[in-house]
Amino acid sequence: MAAAAAILPELATQVLIPVAAAVGIAFAVLQWVLVSKVKLTAERRGEGGAGAGGAGKSGPSDYLIEEEEGLNDHNVVSKCAEIQTAISEGATSFLFTEYKYVGLFMGIFAILIFLFLGSVEGFSTKSQPCHYSKDKTCKPALANAVFSTIAFVLGAVTSLVSGFLGMKIATYANARTTLEARKGVGKAFITAFRSGAVMGFLLAASGLLVLYIAINLFGIYYGDDWEGLFEAITGYGLGGSSMALFGRVGGGIYTKAADVGADLVGKVERNIPEDDPRNPAVIADNVGDNVGDIAGMGSDLFGSYAESSCAALVVASISSFGINHEFTPMVYPLLISSVGIIACLITTLFATDFFEIKAVNEIEPALKKQLIISTAVMTVGIALVSWLGLPYTFTIFNFGAQKTVQSWQLFLCVAVGLWAGLIIGFVTEYYTSNAYSPVQDVADSCRTGAATNVIFGLALGYKSVIIPIFAIAFSIFLSFSLAAMYGVAVAALGMLSTIATGLAIDAYGPISDNAGGIAEMAGMSHRIRERTDALDAAGNTTAAIGKGFAIGSAALVSLALFGAFVSRAAISTVDVLTPKVFIGLIVGAMLPYWFSAMTMKSVGSAALKMVEEVRRQFNTIPGLMEGTTKPDYATCVKISTDASIKEMIPPGALVMLTPLIVGILFGVETLSGVLAGALVSGVQIAISASNTGGAWDNAKKYIEAGASEHARALGPKGSDPHKAAVIGDTIGDPLKDTSGPSLNILIKLMAVESLVFAPFFATHGGILFKLF
Amino acid sequence: MAAAAAILPELATQVLIPVAAAVGIAFAVLQWVLVSKVKLTAERRGEGGAGAGGAGKSGPSDYLIEEEEGLNDHNVVSKCAEIQTAISEGATSFLFTEYKYVGLFMGIFAILIFLFLGSVEGFSTKSQPCHYSKDKTCKPALANAVFSTIAFVLGAVTSLVSGFLGMKIATYANARTTLEARKGVGKAFITAFRSGAVMGFLLAASGLLVLYIAINLFGIYYGDDWEGLFEAITGYGLGGSSMALFGRVGGGIYTKAADVGADLVGKVERNIPEDDPRNPAVIADNVGDNVGDIAGMGSDLFGSYAESSCAALVVASISSFGINHEFTPMVYPLLISSVGIIACLITTLFATDFFEIKAVNEIEPALKKQLIISTAVMTVGIALVSWLGLPYTFTIFNFGAQKTVQSWQLFLCVAVGLWAGLIIGFVTEYYTSNAYSPVQDVADSCRTGAATNVIFGLALGYKSVIIPIFAIAFSIFLSFSLAAMYGVAVAALGMLSTIATGLAIDAYGPISDNAGGIAEMAGMSHRIRERTDALDAAGNTTAAIGKGFAIGSAALVSLALFGAFVSRAAISTVDVLTPKVFIGLIVGAMLPYWFSAMTMKSVGSAALKMVEEVRRQFNTIPGLMEGTTKPDYATCVKISTDASIKEMIPPGALVMLTPLIVGILFGVETLSGVLAGALVSGVQIAISASNTGGAWDNAKKYIEAGASEHARALGPKGSDPHKAAVIGDTIGDPLKDTSGPSLNILIKLMAVESLVFAPFFATHGGILFKLF
Repeated sequence: MAAAAAILPELATQVLIPVAAAVGIAFAVLQWVLVSKVKLTAERRGEGGAGAGGAGKSGPSDYLIEEEEGLNDHNVVSKCAEIQTAISEGATSFLFTEYKYVGLFMGIFAILIFLFLGSVEGFSTKSQPCHYSKDKTCKPALANAVFSTIAFVLGAVTSLVSGFLGMKIATYANARTTLEARKGVGKAFITAFRSGAVMGFLLAASGLLVLYIAINLFGIYYGDDWEGLFEAITGYGLGGSSMALFGRVGGGIYTKAADVGADLVGKVERNIPEDDPRNPAVIADNVGDNVGDIAGMGSDLFGSYAESSCAALVVASISSFGINHEFTPMVYPLLISSVGIIACLITTLFATDFFEIKAVNEIEPALKKQLIISTAVMTVGIALVSWLGLPYTFTIFNFGAQKTVQSWQLFLCVAVGLWAGLIIGFVTEYYTSNAYSPVQDVADSCRTGAATNVIFGLALGYKSVIIPIFAIAFSIFLSFSLAAMYGVAVAALGMLSTIATGLAIDAYGPISDNAGGIAEMAGMSHRIRERTDALDAAGNTTAAIGKGFAIGSAALVSLALFGAFVSRAAISTVDVLTPKVFIGLIVGAMLPYWFSAMTMKSVGSAALKMVEEVRRQFNTIPGLMEGTTKPDYATCVKISTDASIKEMIPPGALVMLTPLIVGILFGVETLSGVLAGALVSGVQIAISASNTGGAWDNAKKYIEAGASEHARALGPKGSDPHKAAVIGDTIGDPLKDTSGPSLNILIKLMAVESLVFAPFFATHGGILFKLF
Repeated sequence: MAAAAAILPELATQVLIPVAAAVGIAFAVLQWVLVSKVKLTAERRGEGGAGAGGAGKSGPSDYLIEEEEGLNDHNVVSKCAEIQTAISEGATSFLFTEYKYVGLFMGIFAILIFLFLGSVEGFSTKSQPCHYSKDKTCKPALANAVFSTIAFVLGAVTSLVSGFLGMKIATYANARTTLEARKGVGKAFITAFRSGAVMGFLLAASGLLVLYIAINLFGIYYGDDWEGLFEAITGYGLGGSSMALFGRVGGGIYTKAADVGADLVGKVERNIPEDDPRNPAVIADNVGDNVGDIAGMGSDLFGSYAESSCAALVVASISSFGINHEFTPMVYPLLISSVGIIACLITTLFATDFFEIKAVNEIEPALKKQLIISTAVMTVGIALVSWLGLPYTFTIFNFGAQKTVQSWQLFLCVAVGLWAGLIIGFVTEYYTSNAYSPVQDVADSCRTGAATNVIFGLALGYKSVIIPIFAIAFSIFLSFSLAAMYGVAVAALGMLSTIATGLAIDAYGPISDNAGGIAEMAGMSHRIRERTDALDAAGNTTAAIGKGFAIGSAALVSLALFGAFVSRAAISTVDVLTPKVFIGLIVGAMLPYWFSAMTMKSVGSAALKMVEEVRRQFNTIPGLMEGTTKPDYATCVKISTDASIKEMIPPGALVMLTPLIVGILFGVETLSGVLAGALVSGVQIAISASNTGGAWDNAKKYIEAGASEHARALGPKGSDPHKAAVIGDTIGDPLKDTSGPSLNILIKLMAVESLVFAPFFATHGGILFKLF
């Protein structure tokens, strides 16, 4: 056994993981300090700004970039600060309201977890034979209930904090980005990107750290019972993902109700620009970006990360690593994440320090380079970890049997996930960026009106599914064949290993979007707005890429969790051609539609209310259109808040309760079918919805920017093709920001929930079939 | 064995089936004769019309109904005749062009079938041990190749003739319906409905008859080898469905390119009514209704019918019926169809003779009554057939084993399918008729523009999937549990047993639509147009119901075929948690998206061309808008024809080639995954696409009709909400008439093709896995 051990000793591993997490947090703090150097108070700006502004004026680099503009307008600075405060307060207040309701739900759910899992052995405090190694003795089921519940709460709180911090950073950064845009697009880019990095690194590092600490603390009780330890740890994934669900759905409804409402009256009816301060829904819209795209997405990706780690760990604990208590290979998933933080750190330097953005058309390539560099660096990192952290040969649990695997095969599993993520990212970019023909075709179809635009956009979304699905299928086939479900789980981790960079890019988008909004509201010049628009357009594409990653990893994670569930529930096969499984499969494939119907309708109804309120204000408040009176922003904020709180409950309940109801009434076979059906159907709708929405958004931006002769022929703003494009953009909003990205949580969450409750279902489930 | 035999002797069965088919055909001819009494020639109308018109004037019944109008305007009659000729010629010419290309493809495919199946045993002419009963001797694989090919051609030709005859009858009936509308809505309804019945009964009866004859003729060669006989017969289903695919896709692209093109310029830009003779695309639009909705749908439902019969027969042949050579229970599927024809005949009389339509609002209830009556009558019919045609106890092949089943259990299987069809029909009606709140909500969302209309419409479509899926899942669970795959197959047959009535109702829609078009083009009065519009609005809902039936039955049929394929390919389980199956599952779930992307884009591109041509004509032909010059209809017809012929090849090839490529390269396990994935994913998109489209169409009609205060507040024609509704309607066109209804063919066709090629795949398939 000594000959077969990993090169890296346990002590080194125990040091390396927290150090990597600490480095990540330190790097995030450093980026935050750099962002905070942009001063936002008009008074202080006098001195601080003199320094920074002076450097800007005397330094030769700035002259090379672009002309500076309006640097001495103190009035603008205080206006920006004021708007930022309004957005930040709105977002904070919404999140607190959301957390209050979600907290209640989570509390109830935590009790359910405890009761259900505790009841498996009738709340007995006696030790029991282990589930997989019957000859060993494991901790009682009651301990599993207690620690699963604790892990659940821990996951939920970490997810909540991740989302909240992300929102705080974003609302801290948006006005600063606006102000930096006065100095040029390069400065603004760096500010927005650094702020994104703060979030990315904080989230990746804290997710890793909390998981690491939990494992060590739980280990004190569990001792040698690693099977029980890592089974309890899966609660962490469930907590993270449940929180993410509400964050995504609630935030998604909030942001899109406001966005759709603001656009329909402002842009379509009143013909005023986006983010015009006269629009009563404009603050709600900007708040929405932060609670939906930032906080929601942060929670979502944290959930994916937590789940794939848990899925890998739970399988590892019943493989040779766990059976032989080899700590270093056991925490191989955490080692990958640790190296990932370092790899992303190096990558970030390429964007912020090694290169400089000098023109608008360099933004998108710079962001794309981030993806490529991080993937390349990470490939080396994975090779290193696989060489040092794994024995050359080991065995992996494979539905009851042990499969012999070699370390290089596991390297291939992680690497295929990583590179599949890159492919998905680039395909997403191809279908959603207006630099390529698909989006240009959609824009072109606006010539004949909104109907053809929608038809082309839907077709584009459907088409964009093809290559990602082949990439996912190939990764699954390879990793599944090489290392069973453990292979699939680490492939998912591979895709998520560059999460810090992915999140940085992703968060950059809404920050730029907000920056543009603040520029417009503060009445800054047209040229500054152009700069922030350019940042934002690149952000749209990167947001779509981020969603691609989220969906691709969700597919892999769900499959890994599904496999772990099937093992834990002691089902030997999931045979489609048995009635129990097949009805699960077809009903499972229907769930994403049910869920989408709920979320889309919620956005639609909330938007209707918003439109009516905005119209009312325009019609009844004298001087609003002329800009002499201020609109009543607070009512619009309240409409969005109320709608999202109320409307997030039914879809949330659908996802959270389905596994429970199916498991209890129909049993584990039908539940397996439901999981498989929801997975293979949901991933398609999620990809197509995100890409359709992204394409419409950028088709509109393509016409507005008028960068080519073709684009100018379709424009300008206010032309018939542009109006058709705006309609498409509006339809795409709930698709790409509410229902689409929530779907990947649906498939992950149902899988992890089934896994957590598997001991209960296996013992007490399927009462309907038992009765008849 | 004698005690367990069926009550009905073989001779009686041999008489009953052809007699039922003959009765069906005779009834169709009778209906046709009644329709033909409406004279269409202006000269003859002088005398014939004098009789009919005279009767109309003197008969008291007509006075009760509605005021007659314009009966003596000979000019109108000749105009109608002229327009009808144009439509009929356009449709005939298109279908001949289509059949030429499809014929070539079918010829090549027939050769493939022969070569592939012949090569299974190296074209040996020696008899071989049977596949399922190894102790018996069966005919050589080469015979299977020859007869499968013949059955394929037979199926394709029957499908082609069904579609063509349907189109001929529809184009024969549409102007006659228009003329009858002068006498009142009741007369017009009966003419349209009788014409639909001609098609329904012809198709149901000829499908049954050809199948019956083929079985008897093939039986001369096969003798006691029923296993080989019914394996060869499955080619009939493949032929029918392949033809249906091209009919649906080609016809769907044709009709929607014309429809979208005509609407976008005519209704949206030029503000002229639908079917205005000044619109250059108007003839193409009306031709499209006949080649898409009539010929395409006829082929489609014939395909479903042929496939479910084949699926049931092939399983029966290896169950106790086939093993013991019990003819009557062996052809139980054909007996159900025979009784179905009689049940539908009785049902039809309720619409045409027992009751009379006196007002516009009686149309939809009359059509709905048809569904209820036919289901009720048929339930008795099934009970009768199950009692007389089946032994009390028998065994059914169940993946290698024989399962004991009792006749009443089989009755339950057929009945659950039948009633599930009714439920699906009513749910579809609820979501697509503007008498209920879902469509009214969609109409209401037009207040805030096209974007909210689209969001609400998509949400409605997603939501409308829920209950049908539960109904399908329940039917599958019950029939699968009771009688394995045979149960599922006969459940599908149950759903399709009332096909004659279903088709009559379905064909009624496009005939009424055309009748309205002809009224408008012939310049008939507003009141007559109102009557045809009322017929048409009811037709929209019934069309959606028909699609619901088609999809529901397709799901059951596909599952039954899939089960038969798995048995034939000698796979023991289809375990989702094996890499080979899972990648098939996720890729299979993607195929409907790929397919939809192709068809949607095709409609979009063809519509763009159409729009440009129509705009060109309006802009360059002087006097066109004023109605003094005639537009160039022929160019528009050509655009639709060329586009649909060219664009139907790629989606057709995708569906036809996927099973071959997957089977040959990846083998039967992966192919099983693909079939299951395509089935559970495709059925959802198909339902949601059809219902979304139907809802948008009727939301528009709701606003136009202005029958309630709410509707009037949204209208009138030309108001902003109405314009938004028109955009939704246009987007819905390709969803509900091209991609949606083609998807059920996709899932059926891939399944039946896999079944036909199963012997080849089992022997030579999966070369990629064999190599690596």
